[in-house]
Amino acid sequence: MNLSVNGDRLLARLEELATIGAITGANGERGSARLALTDEDRAGRDLVVSWMNDLGLDVTVDVVGNVVAVMSGFGDLAPVMTGSHIDTVATGGRFDGNLGVLAGLEVIESVIEAGVQLTRPLAVAFFTDEEGARFAPDMLGSLVYVGGLAPEVAHDIRAIDGARLGDELERIGYLGGAPCPGAVPHAFVELHIEQGPVLEAEGYRLGAVTGVQGISWTRVDLVGQSNHAGTTPMAMRRDPSAAMMQIGALLAEIVAEVGDPQVGTIGKIDLHPNLVNVVPARASFTIDVRHTDESVLVDVEHRVRAGIERIAAAHGVEAHCESLARFEPVDFDERVVALIESSAASHGVPCRRLPSGAGHDAQMLARRCPTAMIFTPSVRGVSHNPAEMTDADDLVLGCQVLADVMLELTGHKGIGES
Amino acid sequence: MNLSVNGDRLLARLEELATIGAITGANGERGSARLALTDEDRAGRDLVVSWMNDLGLDVTVDVVGNVVAVMSGFGDLAPVMTGSHIDTVATGGRFDGNLGVLAGLEVIESVIEAGVQLTRPLAVAFFTDEEGARFAPDMLGSLVYVGGLAPEVAHDIRAIDGARLGDELERIGYLGGAPCPGAVPHAFVELHIEQGPVLEAEGYRLGAVTGVQGISWTRVDLVGQSNHAGTTPMAMRRDPSAAMMQIGALLAEIVAEVGDPQVGTIGKIDLHPNLVNVVPARASFTIDVRHTDESVLVDVEHRVRAGIERIAAAHGVEAHCESLARFEPVDFDERVVALIESSAASHGVPCRRLPSGAGHDAQMLARRCPTAMIFTPSVRGVSHNPAEMTDADDLVLGCQVLADVMLELTGHKGIGES
Repeated sequence: MNLSVNGDRLLARLEELATIGAITGANGERGSARLALTDEDRAGRDLVVSWMNDLGLDVTVDVVGNVVAVMSGFGDLAPVMTGSHIDTVATGGRFDGNLGVLAGLEVIESVIEAGVQLTRPLAVAFFTDEEGARFAPDMLGSLVYVGGLAPEVAHDIRAIDGARLGDELERIGYLGGAPCPGAVPHAFVELHIEQGPVLEAEGYRLGAVTGVQGISWTRVDLVGQSNHAGTTPMAMRRDPSAAMMQIGALLAEIVAEVGDPQVGTIGKIDLHPNLVNVVPARASFTIDVRHTDESVLVDVEHRVRAGIERIAAAHGVEAHCESLARFEPVDFDERVVALIESSAASHGVPCRRLPSGAGHDAQMLARRCPTAMIFTPSVRGVSHNPAEMTDADDLVLGCQVLADVMLELTGHKGIGES
Repeated sequence: MNLSVNGDRLLARLEELATIGAITGANGERGSARLALTDEDRAGRDLVVSWMNDLGLDVTVDVVGNVVAVMSGFGDLAPVMTGSHIDTVATGGRFDGNLGVLAGLEVIESVIEAGVQLTRPLAVAFFTDEEGARFAPDMLGSLVYVGGLAPEVAHDIRAIDGARLGDELERIGYLGGAPCPGAVPHAFVELHIEQGPVLEAEGYRLGAVTGVQGISWTRVDLVGQSNHAGTTPMAMRRDPSAAMMQIGALLAEIVAEVGDPQVGTIGKIDLHPNLVNVVPARASFTIDVRHTDESVLVDVEHRVRAGIERIAAAHGVEAHCESLARFEPVDFDERVVALIESSAASHGVPCRRLPSGAGHDAQMLARRCPTAMIFTPSVRGVSHNPAEMTDADDLVLGCQVLADVMLELTGHKGIGES
């Protein structure tokens, strides 16, 4: 098959969608703020749905506002689906999510224009509240789509601004009638920006995503004794700050020992009372560790927990650990990953296999059907920021590979039965 | 000499002064809030001055509101002076500062009552804004008294609430006419609660304070690169939080290696943006190190600075260090310290030599005349808190030792020429 996507049309749609909820970055960069189920999200949805309708697709809206557009005329045949999200964080860029949705639209339009005869339909979807920036958890819409969360539970979730999700769906006109869990696709492939620095740093224009890292977030509360920083000899202290520093140094050691792709971050720290000359009474901090292999992640968690207990005891402070989030790693389908690599090779473009460090809708779909993702590079790894950037050539290349893989998947007879 | 102080009278005055600006602690403890030069401070001053006048002392108020009360009838003979402060922090206890002033008053009243014939006068003073809780720096009044800061500079200092120090002095009626630097005493001895846990923990009722630790406060700003905690491999990070943890662990190692009385504290930390899943862009934290030996303190500062530079470079983060405060250690007069020990021995009470980890007015007076301090224990080391507590017997014992030492100092012919 030799179908070329229309890069200019893709880029024009990205530009037009970005004008809705437009914001400006520190250096004049153009970004978007379309928090889930706000008026801006509604306007973005309306625009994309109008494009779906222009192509004569069967557009359905489900009970949590996920929108699925399928090529008509194929009866009940399960579609090869692509999709992503069009909600953004408050300081969003133009490409995160939007690229995957508009590239899917572009693939379908190119197929229709070229009159390609398919054995099964293509579909493009956008899922509600992928970012989780307004309603927790993130990837909410795709989670409900695959049956991981009941719609009525989702409806009762409150936004950071207090609004109820079900009410907001109704308010913006996206409380649809299609049931969840939704129909299972034949296969799913998502195009997304990397949101990390690896591809650019290593000179790749394409990534074949092998899975999503498992995530473990822990909040650690260390409770000691507030004391005068001058009058309290070291041996008489119960200093949670000193204990935390030692835990932080241990975490770095463990992460270094395990090596790539293990990552570990202490991103949030709150001392109390947080004064220069007072030994703190309390140190609260978070530990974020991620790995693609569940057994490694569990082992790292155990080592970190044991270290926390040992170090806390040595400092005479109490340690309380609470799991804030825990997701097992997701492995994508090797056959779909291989199709991405084949497409890249056919275009003479080197492609790097890598795991995703961030969560994506595709990891939810992977529970139900063969799934993988295509990454395009993020300049300097910047995302969730108006400065988010991917070169236009790379956007179009990613869309072309998406087209190749979707068309291959329509003919992939065995893949639906896995 | 065999003079006994009146313990009940001392305790009654402590109780009465504590009713001014009375506050209540978490468990019903009674404390005081008399921030410097507020209406509460004025009321406290007025009460103590009325007691000074009742004893027929010559009371002078100087240009920064320090109040000195000297026994009359000795012409120009330099007095043996005691004193402390009656301002408090916002969450003050009943004893911090107040004990030293009211014990001095008690010593003088006892001497007058007993008709002791002295060769030189006794004096008791309270100094303005020792706590520094309203006007920086702390020990402001005694600093001006010894000539360390010009009165007109002090007058222009602004409070945390914006008020000008000179205006506040005038407003509460304590902008006096006595010049600063003030008259040099023959000797100075200050009674104070320890504000630390050492005496109680080791079973001592008395401390002979050999000096004040040198203090070094540094603010460290580490600037790295904010990144996604999932998508950024460890090798591509410039993580100021990870660098800080390693610096904290190093500080603990250095402090442990130097050993007592070295102390080191990281009491204040601010990460930006302080989110669980974001590698911080910036970590700002403070390092408080103290030692009684200036050369050791300088060495520790150098080792910590070198460690910061090495660790920051290894993490690819920029490090900026700023000195927030730096005071050299103060050595008290060995002869005065020995007099405290002799008095303790005469009462059959073991007395521990120790440095002060906190700052006190006596360290300013030590620049001008032979000086030392007497410590009484602080239960659990708690201070700057309504729960601040010293047993009544220990308060009275401290006052008795103060009386003994002041009387000895009046006859100490050589000591004035040191």
